[in-house]
Amino acid sequence: MPVAAQSLDQLAINSIRFLAVDAIEKAKSGHPGLPMGAAPMAYVLWQNFMRYNPKNPQWFNRDRFVLSAGHGSMLQYALLHLTGYDSVSIEDIKNFRQWGSSTPGHPENFETAGVEVTTGPLGQGIANGVGLALAEAHLAAKYNKPDATIVDHYTYVIVGDGCNMEGISGEAASIAGHWGLGKLIVLYDDNHISIDGSTDVAFTEDVSKRFEAYGWHTIHVEDGNTDLAAISAAIEAAKKVTDKPTMIKVTTIIGYGSPNKCNTAGIHGAALGTEEVKLTRENLGWEYAPFELPADAVAHMREAIDRGAKYEGEWEATLATYKSKYPQEAAEFEGLLTRQLPAGWDSVLPTYTPADNAVASRKHSEICLNKLAPVLPGLMGGSADLTHSNLTEIKGSGDFQKGAYQNRNVHFGVREHAMGAICNGMALHNSGLIPYGATFLIFTDYMRAAIRLSALSQIGALWVMTHDSIGQGEDGPTHQPIETIASLRAIPNLTVIRPADGNETSGAYKVAIEKASQQAPTLLALSRQNLPNLAGTSIEGVTKGAYTIADSEGTPDIILIGTGSEVSLCVKAAEQLTTEGKKVRVVSMPSWELFDAQDAAYQESVLPKAVTKRVAVEAACSMGWHRFVGMDGGLVTVDRFGASAPGGTVMEKYGFTVDNVVATAKKVLG
Amino acid sequence: MPVAAQSLDQLAINSIRFLAVDAIEKAKSGHPGLPMGAAPMAYVLWQNFMRYNPKNPQWFNRDRFVLSAGHGSMLQYALLHLTGYDSVSIEDIKNFRQWGSSTPGHPENFETAGVEVTTGPLGQGIANGVGLALAEAHLAAKYNKPDATIVDHYTYVIVGDGCNMEGISGEAASIAGHWGLGKLIVLYDDNHISIDGSTDVAFTEDVSKRFEAYGWHTIHVEDGNTDLAAISAAIEAAKKVTDKPTMIKVTTIIGYGSPNKCNTAGIHGAALGTEEVKLTRENLGWEYAPFELPADAVAHMREAIDRGAKYEGEWEATLATYKSKYPQEAAEFEGLLTRQLPAGWDSVLPTYTPADNAVASRKHSEICLNKLAPVLPGLMGGSADLTHSNLTEIKGSGDFQKGAYQNRNVHFGVREHAMGAICNGMALHNSGLIPYGATFLIFTDYMRAAIRLSALSQIGALWVMTHDSIGQGEDGPTHQPIETIASLRAIPNLTVIRPADGNETSGAYKVAIEKASQQAPTLLALSRQNLPNLAGTSIEGVTKGAYTIADSEGTPDIILIGTGSEVSLCVKAAEQLTTEGKKVRVVSMPSWELFDAQDAAYQESVLPKAVTKRVAVEAACSMGWHRFVGMDGGLVTVDRFGASAPGGTVMEKYGFTVDNVVATAKKVLG
Repeated sequence: MPVAAQSLDQLAINSIRFLAVDAIEKAKSGHPGLPMGAAPMAYVLWQNFMRYNPKNPQWFNRDRFVLSAGHGSMLQYALLHLTGYDSVSIEDIKNFRQWGSSTPGHPENFETAGVEVTTGPLGQGIANGVGLALAEAHLAAKYNKPDATIVDHYTYVIVGDGCNMEGISGEAASIAGHWGLGKLIVLYDDNHISIDGSTDVAFTEDVSKRFEAYGWHTIHVEDGNTDLAAISAAIEAAKKVTDKPTMIKVTTIIGYGSPNKCNTAGIHGAALGTEEVKLTRENLGWEYAPFELPADAVAHMREAIDRGAKYEGEWEATLATYKSKYPQEAAEFEGLLTRQLPAGWDSVLPTYTPADNAVASRKHSEICLNKLAPVLPGLMGGSADLTHSNLTEIKGSGDFQKGAYQNRNVHFGVREHAMGAICNGMALHNSGLIPYGATFLIFTDYMRAAIRLSALSQIGALWVMTHDSIGQGEDGPTHQPIETIASLRAIPNLTVIRPADGNETSGAYKVAIEKASQQAPTLLALSRQNLPNLAGTSIEGVTKGAYTIADSEGTPDIILIGTGSEVSLCVKAAEQLTTEGKKVRVVSMPSWELFDAQDAAYQESVLPKAVTKRVAVEAACSMGWHRFVGMDGGLVTVDRFGASAPGGTVMEKYGFTVDNVVATAKKVLG
Repeated sequence: MPVAAQSLDQLAINSIRFLAVDAIEKAKSGHPGLPMGAAPMAYVLWQNFMRYNPKNPQWFNRDRFVLSAGHGSMLQYALLHLTGYDSVSIEDIKNFRQWGSSTPGHPENFETAGVEVTTGPLGQGIANGVGLALAEAHLAAKYNKPDATIVDHYTYVIVGDGCNMEGISGEAASIAGHWGLGKLIVLYDDNHISIDGSTDVAFTEDVSKRFEAYGWHTIHVEDGNTDLAAISAAIEAAKKVTDKPTMIKVTTIIGYGSPNKCNTAGIHGAALGTEEVKLTRENLGWEYAPFELPADAVAHMREAIDRGAKYEGEWEATLATYKSKYPQEAAEFEGLLTRQLPAGWDSVLPTYTPADNAVASRKHSEICLNKLAPVLPGLMGGSADLTHSNLTEIKGSGDFQKGAYQNRNVHFGVREHAMGAICNGMALHNSGLIPYGATFLIFTDYMRAAIRLSALSQIGALWVMTHDSIGQGEDGPTHQPIETIASLRAIPNLTVIRPADGNETSGAYKVAIEKASQQAPTLLALSRQNLPNLAGTSIEGVTKGAYTIADSEGTPDIILIGTGSEVSLCVKAAEQLTTEGKKVRVVSMPSWELFDAQDAAYQESVLPKAVTKRVAVEAACSMGWHRFVGMDGGLVTVDRFGASAPGGTVMEKYGFTVDNVVATAKKVLG
C-alpha cells in the first residue's frame, strides 16, 4: 500500500526493513532476510514494551536486548538509529560493514553503545541472555526491598533457527528452565529458512515442545508478519508468567516484502540486488530514497527518548529512597556498579613459605576464592558439575537456585559451553559481577567459542581450569591436556596463568581480579596433584609474568624456564647442575601474556639476550616455546597424547623428571 | 540373597558389578556407580539382543555398542571379558587404569579390541552412535538387495545424565530424529546423580519429552535395577519401531548394591573403600573373592562366542550369495571394507599453471571433492549449514535423507559439534567411509572436542574449513580466525594443510585421502577469496609440507616462508627484493606436520641452518613461527582480533601487503 495509507506502525516497520535493505545493498554484503522478517516483532518490542534510555545506553535498570541471530545486525542498528541512540547515525548505517564504522558485520558490544553483547557465532546470544537474566535475578534477590525495587528489568532475546540448532542454546535453555528465570523472554524468528535452504533439510523437530520439556512457557504467534496485536498479546502473556522463562515462536517469512526472494535462502545472507530492491519498494509501497526515512515514523520511534528519560528518572527517585532507607546496602550496590575494587581487597590473599605443606594449586585456588568472596560481593560462579574436583564452592553462600537467587554458588550442570556464555552475560550485565566458570582444563575445548568471545568482547570473567596436565593421571588421554594451554595462549586478549605453588596462585588471583575489574578475562590452569611451595615465588612475580626464582652468581650458563607443576623440577635440576659447577638461573613463567606486557628492560633482566642456552619445561606441547628458548633450545614438553596410569607414573614416563631436565640442560650446554 | 539362590542372570549381573568394584578398588581410581547401576541393562542387551563375535571383534555386520558415559569403562571391560573377547583378560582387569594396560580410564578404540569408539568427554558417544547408525543406513541402502541383506545391524548406546546435559547430544539427537534412524537405540541410565550430587541441582528437564520433540520413539523402564523383563520388552519394542530412533529411559540406582553409598555422588567417581566393598558383598550375597567369577555365569555369558561364530557364518553365507549374484556391487563393497584406495585414484586431481584463473581455494576444494567422488565411493559428508559457502556438495549425488540414505550429501544443520562426532562415528564404522565435515574455520571452536578425538582415536576424517583468515572480510572479528590455525596445529596427530593455490589444494586432497585410508585426520584451511595460481607449486611439494617455489642462485640472503593466501605476497616481495640485489628464497609451507615428517636432509635443503635470516608470512597469529624463523626472525602475522570491512581492506590494514613483507625482510636483513 502507498505510504500515505500506512499506519505509523507500518511506516516504522518498513523503515527498519529499508534501512537494512539499503545498507546491505550499499555494502554489497550482509543479511537482509532476518531484519525484513523480524522487523514487526522487534518494533513491537522496542516501541511498546522495552524500557531503555537512548541517551544513556548504560542506564542500569534498562531491559536488556540480545540479537542472538547476530547476522541480522542491521535490525539492531536500525532500531538503535530509529529510537535515537547517538551511537548509530545515518552515516554509520551508510558505512555498514566498512572499516572503522560503528556498524560492523555482527553486533559488537565494544564498538556500538546500545549493543549489550557480541553475537554472530550462533547460540551464544541466548546463553548470554540467560546470564543477563541470572544477574538481574541475583541482584534483585540481594538488594531489592519491599518498599524499594531498584533491580527490575526483563531480558529479551531474538533467536533464529540457527541458534536453536546449536547445542549451546539447548544447554542454556535447559538450565534457564531449571532456574525458572521468569524475566527472560525469547522471541524465536521461526522462518523455516537457513543457509542450506528450507529447514526441512535438517531441522524438523518440534522446538516449542522441546522448550516445554526444559520447563519453559511457550506461545506461538502464527502470523509474525502482520499481526502486531498477536505479538503484543504474546509478550504481555510472557510477562505474566513469572516463574518460567517464555519462548514465543513467531512464525515469519524471511525477507518479507521481497516479491521474488522472500522465503528463500537467497535472501538470508546476500544483498537483494538493484532490481529486487526496486521491486521490494514497489511491493511495500515505499516511496523513499535509500536511507531516507519518513519523519513521522522517526518521531514516533524517538518517543523512546522521552520515555527513557522518564523511566530513568523514576528509577533514580526509587534509588534515592533506597539510599536514604538502606544506606549500607546502597553503598554496596553502588560500589558494585562502579566495578571498582574495594581498597586493600588483595590483602586477604595468602602467602606461603617452603615450610608449608605441598598442596594442589586447585586447592590454593579454593582458598583464594573463599578469602576473596567476603570482600568481593560481585564474585559469583561455579562449575560444570565438577564442583568438588575444581574446588570452586564459596563456602557458606548456598546455591543459586529458583527461590534462592541471592546465593552465589552456581551449578551449571555438565554444560561447559553454556557456562561460558552465561558467565559472559553475567559480566556484560555491567553491574560489577565477577563471574567464574570451572571445569577440567581439557574441557575448555567444549567452551572455547565462549572463552574466545570473553576475550573479544572485553569481559571480566575468570576461567578456573583444573587437572591441567598429564599429571591428571588415571583418566587418560581423553582427559589430559596436551595442546590446550598453547591453544588458549594463542587467543588475543586472554591472560593465561599457570601458577607453580601457593604464592603464585595468590598472584594469579590478584591479576585475574584486577583484569576482571578492567574488563578482561583470565584463565587459570591449576594442578590436580600436590605441589611444593617454592623459595622465591611471589605474588609480585606473577604480576610480571616471569621472574627469576633461583640464580647463580654472575651471568648464568643456562636458564631453565618452567611453569606450574614443572617449576619445582627446574629448581631441583638447577641444584644438581650447580653442584656440577654450572651457573644456572631458574625462571618461573606463569604467564606469557603478562611477561609480554613488561618493558624491554625487565624482560632483558629476566631473560638476557646474551644467554642463549635455555630449556623450557612444561607438561604440555612445545608449540610457542621456541620464542623463549630459540630454534635450538631445550624442550622438556609433550607432543603426543597422554596415557592412563597414576599421575606420577605418566609424568615420569613422559620425561618429567629431574634427571631428564638435567640431561636436557647438559645437551643444550653441549 | 546367597549365590546358591541366584539365577544365572543375577550371577552374571553381579559378576559385572564386582569386576567393576574390585578393579576400581585395586586401582583406587575409577567410577563404580554406573557399572553397578547399569549392569542389568547392559547384561540384557549383550546376552539377549546384541549380535557380535568376540573372536572377531571387527566382524563387519556386528551390532555396534557405544558406552557414551565413558567414565563407566569398567562396565564395558567387564562385558568384554565375560563374553570372551581376548582383548580383556582378568589380568587386564586387574591392571585397570595402569600404565600399558588394555583397560585405560576411559574406553579407547585404539587400545582395546571390542571398543568401537573412544568416550569419556561426555556427549560424544551418542553422536558417534548417530554416525555409526548413519553409516549402516547408508551402506544398507546402497548395497542390500531384496534377496541378499549384507548390511543389517543395530547401534546401541548407553548414555548417562551427563551426556544428556551436553549440547552435543541434543544436536545429535535432533538430527538423528530428523533422519529417522530406526536402528539407533539409546539406553539412558537415568540415575538422578551426577558429580555435583542429585540432578535436582541442575537438571530437572523432561528428557523423554525432549527426545519426543526431536522425533524419537521413547520408552520408560521404571525399575532398571531388577526388572530384566521390562528391559527386554523395551528393547524388543524399540526394534519394532523402524522409522524413528528409540530412547529407552531406564531408571536405576547409581551404585546399586552398595548399602551406604548407592544413590549418592560419592559412588560416582571413587572407589568404595574396603569396608563398603565388604558390605556390598554381603548385601548382594557375593561369596567370591576379588576377581573370582562364578564359572556358571562366565560359561553362560561366553555362549556369545558360539552365537557370534554362528552369526558371522550366516552372514558369510549371505555375502557369498551376494557375491555370486551381484559381483560388481560386491567388489565395490569389499573394496570399501579393505579401506584400500583404488589404484590411480589420485590421477583425477587437477593441476594448474599461472595462466589459469585466480580462484578461491575453497573452490579448488569443491573441484577436488567432485573429481574424487566418482572414484572414491566411500567419500561422503557435508556442511553445518554452509554448503554453498564451504562448497562441499557432491554434485549429482542427492541428499542423505530419510528414505534416501543411499545419497552422499549430508546436511548436518547448524550443529558443528555433532557434525564432528557423527563424522567420527562414520569413520569408526570401519567400512571404508571417508567422512568430511565442513564449516568456517573459526567455528572449529564449536567442534574442537570432536576434532581432538578424531586425532586421538585414529580417525580418517577430512575437516574442510573455509574462510580461513581476516581475508574473510565483512563478517568481522567473530568470524575471522586469528589463533585458530595455531590452536589446531597444536593437536597431536592432526595434519593441518593451508594450500596456496590450485596445485596445493590438489596436494592437500592427495594427503588427506591417503591419511584417511591410514586412519588419520586432516584439516584443510581454505580461502574465501581468490588466489592466483603460482609458478612452482605442486602436489608433490605439499606432500613434503614445505618446499622451495622460488629461489635466487647460490645461498639465499633471506628466506620468506608463507602459507596459503600469503604465499603470493612472498613471491612478489621476493621479486622486488631481487631487483634490489638480494638473494631470496620463497618457501611455501602448507603443512608443519608434513614438513616435520621429512628427514633432516630434506628439511635442511629447504631451510638451511646457515640461513638465519627468515620471515614468516601468515594471516594468523605468530604463535609457533619462531620455531622456523628464530627468536629474532621476521613475522608478518596478526596477534590481535580482526575487523569488519571488505577483505582486501582488512588484509591491507593488517599489513598483508607486498610493501610490508619487503619492509619486514629488510629489517631482518639489517
